[in-house]
Amino acid sequence: LKPFNYTKVELEQVTEPGANGAKIRWLISKKDGALNFAMRLIEIEPNGYSSLHQHDWEHEVFILEGKGCIRSKNNEESLNPGDVIYIEPLEWHQLINKGNSIFKFICSIPSQTD
Amino acid sequence: LKPFNYTKVELEQVTEPGANGAKIRWLISKKDGALNFAMRLIEIEPNGYSSLHQHDWEHEVFILEGKGCIRSKNNEESLNPGDVIYIEPLEWHQLINKGNSIFKFICSIPSQTD
Repeated sequence: LKPFNYTKVELEQVTEPGANGAKIRWLISKKDGALNFAMRLIEIEPNGYSSLHQHDWEHEVFILEGKGCIRSKNNEESLNPGDVIYIEPLEWHQLINKGNSIFKFICSIPSQTD
Repeated sequence: LKPFNYTKVELEQVTEPGANGAKIRWLISKKDGALNFAMRLIEIEPNGYSSLHQHDWEHEVFILEGKGCIRSKNNEESLNPGDVIYIEPLEWHQLINKGNSIFKFICSIPSQTD
């Protein structure tokens, strides 16, 4: 039970094809003993984005800072701090920075996928 | 894939004995189809606290706003926005507002417990 600031966790480049200017911090995951789900913090640079993709696990997202949008196959929704998104398994999704500062959000996933 | 602001989710009183001035919003849970884990946002009023308790599931916590601390059986750690805490199953814990504004944090739990 040792609190730590999120900036103490390594900021790793997201290397998935189709992503640009996206970085991730694995805040809490299996390495900490968390076997059920993982909490990550994603940081997207101005003009950056995650890849437009789908997978068979869900995301639970909370927007912390910046301005962005989420795009699926057929629509786009704007995102601001305090917004919440539940991305169901198999839903297509891409998160895009639409502002001039870093777009930051919590993105938690079930652990079998990390 | 419909984003919503967290304030749109009902703010429910925490009625557990030992808690005072603590409220909870179930942002994403089984009712939304999220079967693995739930994302909640907890709001504690100035001078308020959650109960000092333990249970056999973990918490994954991210501090959003305000100033507080987490107390366990033998120690107390201060908490500020951007701080992360992994509370292991069976760890004793109590979150306390130590500031003059609402102390807000994300607290996610595995779904079998909600």
